[in-house]
Amino acid sequence: MQYSLSLDLVEKQQRVNGFLTEQLQGYKNANSPLFDAMNYAVLLGGKRVRPFLVYSTGQLLGVPLENLDHSAAAIESIHAYSLVHDDLPAMDNDSLRRGNPTCHIAFDEATAILAGDALQTFAFELLVQDPFLTPQQKVAQIQTLAFASGAKGMCLGQSLDLEAENQAVSLDTLEHIHSNKTGALIEAAVLMGFNLSAYSDNQQIKQSLINYAKAIGLAFQVQDDILDIVGDVNKIGKTVGADESLNKSTYPKLLGLEGAKQKAQLLYQHALDSLNELPFDSTPLKALADFIVNRDS
Amino acid sequence: MQYSLSLDLVEKQQRVNGFLTEQLQGYKNANSPLFDAMNYAVLLGGKRVRPFLVYSTGQLLGVPLENLDHSAAAIESIHAYSLVHDDLPAMDNDSLRRGNPTCHIAFDEATAILAGDALQTFAFELLVQDPFLTPQQKVAQIQTLAFASGAKGMCLGQSLDLEAENQAVSLDTLEHIHSNKTGALIEAAVLMGFNLSAYSDNQQIKQSLINYAKAIGLAFQVQDDILDIVGDVNKIGKTVGADESLNKSTYPKLLGLEGAKQKAQLLYQHALDSLNELPFDSTPLKALADFIVNRDS
Repeated sequence: MQYSLSLDLVEKQQRVNGFLTEQLQGYKNANSPLFDAMNYAVLLGGKRVRPFLVYSTGQLLGVPLENLDHSAAAIESIHAYSLVHDDLPAMDNDSLRRGNPTCHIAFDEATAILAGDALQTFAFELLVQDPFLTPQQKVAQIQTLAFASGAKGMCLGQSLDLEAENQAVSLDTLEHIHSNKTGALIEAAVLMGFNLSAYSDNQQIKQSLINYAKAIGLAFQVQDDILDIVGDVNKIGKTVGADESLNKSTYPKLLGLEGAKQKAQLLYQHALDSLNELPFDSTPLKALADFIVNRDS
Repeated sequence: MQYSLSLDLVEKQQRVNGFLTEQLQGYKNANSPLFDAMNYAVLLGGKRVRPFLVYSTGQLLGVPLENLDHSAAAIESIHAYSLVHDDLPAMDNDSLRRGNPTCHIAFDEATAILAGDALQTFAFELLVQDPFLTPQQKVAQIQTLAFASGAKGMCLGQSLDLEAENQAVSLDTLEHIHSNKTGALIEAAVLMGFNLSAYSDNQQIKQSLINYAKAIGLAFQVQDDILDIVGDVNKIGKTVGADESLNKSTYPKLLGLEGAKQKAQLLYQHALDSLNELPFDSTPLKALADFIVNRDS
């Protein structure tokens, strides 16, 4: 049977969404909008690229899907919290996300700040109570996710990105920003699948997967920058031209639109080369790399 | 030798501050203010009640201090992050904290949001790499801290507190708010000391410590409310009368100033009774309870 990425993506989206919905139930409280805001923020839609990477990397290495649910949901919660805070007026001041009002518009700023905070904590709550993991595995997952998302990873990237606004930055700097801002979490997604496999001590496999993740993480950002120029607001579900209006450094600005497209293709090729080093059938991960550089939303 | 709380407090303050300073070093980045803002927020001063509780509860039960450093620093990071976000314009809009400009005043709002986010992550980074703990102990510490600080604990309390503004709430509701907003983390501090002891399976000791923590946690809030009315801005280092101007429900408002003072004394007695159930010399924890209800700052 021919592999279908769109089918696989939808199945894993539904799986992680169902799991998140179920896990969030215990947080309902009649006197607070916190649960509703968390639920809204984390279930607003989205491609679920990070959960897909957790599931697909784990599957590639023989990990049962149920052992990956908590990890997939945890990394998506971290991603969702970062979007909620990133959209705040003091940050990117975005009112549209995935075609819907951002969390602070749908609720209010205070609730959005708290929902983001609580979604970050929720990620660690999920990992720490995963019934399929040994204590050692829980520690590995928490370590991977925390270091990718904190002041040595995603938060640093966000801060560097803010500092770079209204400044001409070099290609190296731009790459450094994005390797933290989006790359670290993409890499963590792949590693969280890897950590739970029987190959978790194999440094060669680990390195190939990291190289793949670095390539698609950067490609994802390059394509995001491209779509901010050529994208259709109805498809990408957020404001087009936002980077320009914030005077952000982007790949098209530094390389030209054609140069940026070539860069994305090079990264795609590098991602495939990295996967080809592995003695496994990595069709889903290859298909995702293809999707990342060729998506229009 | 007579026990001196002020000496013990200062020693443990210095210990946790030194440890935090050292652990934060690895997060420096020349191109981002994130490290400076995290450092500022977490080292701005403060009594370090939560670290003191981690250390003193651990000591009571025979845990070496060095096994408690990461836990003490982690809970203080969570507390510091909550203050940074709580002070934001969209939340309590406070410009003064511990006698100094709040983080978003000293830096800017975006940096304060990110510094708070990264301080939360930092807490889990600290716990996950504690070299003195077994994986099981790390999991226990992370579980205790996460559930106390997320949408079933502190974040819920913050949200309930915001919802209660401009509303007349009952004493029960006020207690429910504070048991989450401040109580959960005070309880977690005591439990994090307990978790690392040889008594970690003893439910009786655990319950007495929880009762103590619940009593001082609530007493702390009652005294905070009292100080917001009768306190001296130069001593408490934050705006006096802030509750009134935000139209917040407080103990003095519900019970009268004298009633609130009596409530604090009752809670103090309950804290001592709980400690007296334990077969250990709990002088430091008793002295802290005394300090909490009799402090003027």
